[in-house]
Amino acid sequence: MPDNAAAIAEIKALLGERLSTGHSVRELHARDAAHTPPALPDAVAFPETTKEVSQVVEICHRHGCPVVPYGVGTSLEGHIVAFRGGVTLDFSQMNKVLEVHGEDLNVVIQPGVTREQLNEELRATGLFFPIDPGANATLGGMAATRASGTTAVRYGTMKDNVLALEVVLADGRVIRTGTQARKSSAGYDLTRLMVGSEGTLGVITELTLILHGQPEAVSAAVCEFPDTQSAVNAVIMAVQIGLPMARIEYVDTPSIIAISNYSGLELSECPHLFLEFHGSETGVKEQAEQMAEIAAEFGGGGFKWSAKAEERSALWKARHESYFAVRAVRPGAVGITSDVCVPISKLAEAIEATMADAAEHGIYAPILGHVGDGNYHTLLLVEEGNTEEWEAAQGLIHRMNMKALELGGTVSGEHGIGAGKMKYMAAEHGDAWSVMADIKRALDPENILNPGKMVQVN
Amino acid sequence: MPDNAAAIAEIKALLGERLSTGHSVRELHARDAAHTPPALPDAVAFPETTKEVSQVVEICHRHGCPVVPYGVGTSLEGHIVAFRGGVTLDFSQMNKVLEVHGEDLNVVIQPGVTREQLNEELRATGLFFPIDPGANATLGGMAATRASGTTAVRYGTMKDNVLALEVVLADGRVIRTGTQARKSSAGYDLTRLMVGSEGTLGVITELTLILHGQPEAVSAAVCEFPDTQSAVNAVIMAVQIGLPMARIEYVDTPSIIAISNYSGLELSECPHLFLEFHGSETGVKEQAEQMAEIAAEFGGGGFKWSAKAEERSALWKARHESYFAVRAVRPGAVGITSDVCVPISKLAEAIEATMADAAEHGIYAPILGHVGDGNYHTLLLVEEGNTEEWEAAQGLIHRMNMKALELGGTVSGEHGIGAGKMKYMAAEHGDAWSVMADIKRALDPENILNPGKMVQVN
Repeated sequence: MPDNAAAIAEIKALLGERLSTGHSVRELHARDAAHTPPALPDAVAFPETTKEVSQVVEICHRHGCPVVPYGVGTSLEGHIVAFRGGVTLDFSQMNKVLEVHGEDLNVVIQPGVTREQLNEELRATGLFFPIDPGANATLGGMAATRASGTTAVRYGTMKDNVLALEVVLADGRVIRTGTQARKSSAGYDLTRLMVGSEGTLGVITELTLILHGQPEAVSAAVCEFPDTQSAVNAVIMAVQIGLPMARIEYVDTPSIIAISNYSGLELSECPHLFLEFHGSETGVKEQAEQMAEIAAEFGGGGFKWSAKAEERSALWKARHESYFAVRAVRPGAVGITSDVCVPISKLAEAIEATMADAAEHGIYAPILGHVGDGNYHTLLLVEEGNTEEWEAAQGLIHRMNMKALELGGTVSGEHGIGAGKMKYMAAEHGDAWSVMADIKRALDPENILNPGKMVQVN
Repeated sequence: MPDNAAAIAEIKALLGERLSTGHSVRELHARDAAHTPPALPDAVAFPETTKEVSQVVEICHRHGCPVVPYGVGTSLEGHIVAFRGGVTLDFSQMNKVLEVHGEDLNVVIQPGVTREQLNEELRATGLFFPIDPGANATLGGMAATRASGTTAVRYGTMKDNVLALEVVLADGRVIRTGTQARKSSAGYDLTRLMVGSEGTLGVITELTLILHGQPEAVSAAVCEFPDTQSAVNAVIMAVQIGLPMARIEYVDTPSIIAISNYSGLELSECPHLFLEFHGSETGVKEQAEQMAEIAAEFGGGGFKWSAKAEERSALWKARHESYFAVRAVRPGAVGITSDVCVPISKLAEAIEATMADAAEHGIYAPILGHVGDGNYHTLLLVEEGNTEEWEAAQGLIHRMNMKALELGGTVSGEHGIGAGKMKYMAAEHGDAWSVMADIKRALDPENILNPGKMVQVN
C-alpha cells in the first residue's frame, strides 16, 4: 500500500528544511501554465545533488509514493499536476552549468538550468543552445517534454539536441545514457526514450546538450499573404529548395490584429510569415532575397527584411508576446491553448478547417504556427466559470486534434501529452500505446514516476 | 520448450516454396560481412507482405523459435548470425518504394529496398536520401543498425532520418511508430527505440524516411596534412565555425598508399582529408575556399578542389573502395574491421594511440575516419588460421575500444553491437545495460527476436 506520509517523514530526515509541506509551497507546485485542474503534492523537495534525488526516489519507491519532477512550471498540458499527491521534486537548486566543452560543441548542465540562463552563460564562448519554446523553461523540463519551438525548422527539437543524460530510475539507481561521442550504434537509444517521456520513466538529473556556433549574422523578415494556402505554399517551396530558415512562423489575421494592438508594430490585417535567417553577412542577405522571390511567386507582398538588431528584436518580441497580446483581447478570460502537427502538405487544410470551425461556432481562435514543421497552435479565451464557452472551446480543440490525426499528423507537435491529451493516445498510437505501457511497467513497476501521465498501466 | 521444427512446419504450410530449408540457402544467410563464426538458421523465409511477417513471427512466438531479420548481409559485427538456429526472415521480396511524398520530403518504403535503389527511384523527383554507409545495404538493415557513414556530419544518422516505422512485435502484432508529421511530443519515442535495436525488439516491415533536396551543386576537395593532430584541428575549426561540410574523411598514410596503388589516384604519402560540399554554385565554391584557408592555418597543403563530376567521382570511388584497396595489400588475408567514436577533441589522441599500438605490435592497421563525427575505423589483415596474428589483431581492436571508452566515447559509432561487441556493453553502459535488458524482456518475453544480440536476458 502506498504510504506517502512514511516516505515524507524519511525524506524530511534527509533534506530537513529543503522538504516543504507548507500549503503555499505545495500550491505553487500544483499546476503548470495549462488550465488543467490543479492537484497539490503532499510535499515539495528541493534536492541539491543527484545523490539526494536518488535517495528521495529510493525512499518513494519503497513506500509507493508518487514522484513528480518540476522545473519552473511552464508546461502546457498539466504535466506536473500531482494527481495522486506524493513528492514534487523542484530542481531550482540544481541549476549549475557544470562543464562547457567548446571543441566538442556540447555543455553539461543540471536540469534546473533555464534556457536563457544557459545562453547567458555561453555568451562569451561563441556558442549557443538554439531550442526556443518561447517560455524561459528549464532544460530538464524541455528534455522531459521533447520541447521545440520557433527554431526547430533549422536546429531540430530537444530529441536532436540532447547528447546524453544522467537519469535516476524508479528504484533510485543512477544511470547514464549516451556518451560524449557525437553518434553511437551501441545499444538501445535510451537518451531518446527518456527525452519526451515526461518524467514517467526516470528523473533527469544531468544533461549533455549539443551546442551550435553563434551565427555571424542574423536577419529577420516579414511578409504578407492573401490567404493561408499561399503562405503555406511559399513555405513548402522554401523547405523543398533547402533554404536554411532559422525560424518561419505563420501568424493569422486575428493574431496579427492582436499583436498590432499590443506591441504597436504596424502590420496589415492579413496572414503573415515572420522569418529569421542565420548565416554569414552575405548569406543572410541572399536567404532573405531568395525568400522574397518565393513569397512573390505565391502572391506574397510587402516583404520587408532587416539585419538591424533592434528591428529584429521588435519583431520577435512581438511574436513571443503574442500569447499576452491575444490574452489582452479579453482581459480576465482564461486562456486555453492546444497544438497539433501535420504533414506540411496538409497544413493549409488543417489550419483552414480550424478557422472554419471557429467561424461556424462563433469562437475567437487566433492561430500561430511553426509552419516549417507543420505545427500550429490556437489560443482560446474563455470566461471563467462559463460552462457553455468552456465546452465550445473544448469542442473546437477536440475537432482540431481529430483532424490532425485524420491528416496523418500528431495531437502534439511540442506541448506534449501530460494530463490534457491522454484521451488521444489510443487514437494516435493504437497498439503502440500498449507497448509504451509495457515499457513503463518494466522501468517503473510501482508506477511512482509522474503517475497518471502518458500511459495507462492500471 | 523451443520447437523450431514445429514452427517451420507451420510456416512451410503458409509460405510454401518461399520457405527454404536447403543447406545452400541457409549457408548464404549464416554470416554477414564480419568475421564472426557463422551459424546456420534452420530455415529461411522470404515474406512478401507485412501480414506474412506477422504470421511467421506469431508462429515462432508460439513455438519459442528464434527469428532473425536479414537484409543483404552487409552488417559488420555478426548481427544476422543465427546462433540459436530458427528462422531467418529475408526481406528481398519486400523491396518496393510504396509512396513518395514530395511536398512533405518523405518516402514510404519496404525494408528490403536498398540505398542505391531508393536514390535511383528518386532521381527524377529532385530529392534524395543522404545516408551512405558505403555498402549498398537495405534501408531496413540500416535502420535496425542505426547506420551512418560519410555524410552523417551534414545529414545525421539513421536516427535522424527515419520519421516513422511499421514494426511487427514479438507476438506478431503490428504497430506503427510515429506519424507523417515532422515532429511530435506525443508519447515515448518508439521510432528511435527501434532504430538501432538490431532486430531484437521488433521486425521492421515499413519505413518512412526523411528526404532532402538534391544539392544544386557539389564540389569535392583533398588536402594533405603533416600529421593526424593538424588534420583533426582543421576539422574541429571547420565544425566550430559551422562550415556545412557534406562529407569530411580522414585518411591516414597507410590507407593513402593502399588507395593510390589500387585506384591509380596520385596522392602524396601523408595523412589526407577528403571533403565534399553541397550547396549552390557559389556556395560550394565558397565552402571549398573557406576550408582551404582553415587547412592552411593548421599546416595543411596541396589543397585541390573540383566541382567536376568525374573528378569528384574518382575521389569518392577511391575512398569507398578503400576496403578493397587495403585488402589488396595482402591478398587472401582475412579482413577484420572495427569502429569506435570519441568526442572530436579526443580524436587525434585516440587515432594516435591506435597508430602507436599498431607500431609497437608490428600490426598493419590503416585508419580511416568520418572525422567530423569523431568516428574512425581500422581494417586489419590476418592470415587465415594464423592464431598468433588473429590474437594480435583482436588485442589491438580491444585496446582501441577500451581507449574510446576511456576518452568518453563509444565502442561503436556505426557498425553496431551484433555479436562482436557484446563484451563491451557493460563497460560502456553500466546499469543502463540492464535497463536495456528490462525493455527487451518487456517487449520480447520469449527472447525469440535475434536472440543473443545486444542484451543479456538469460
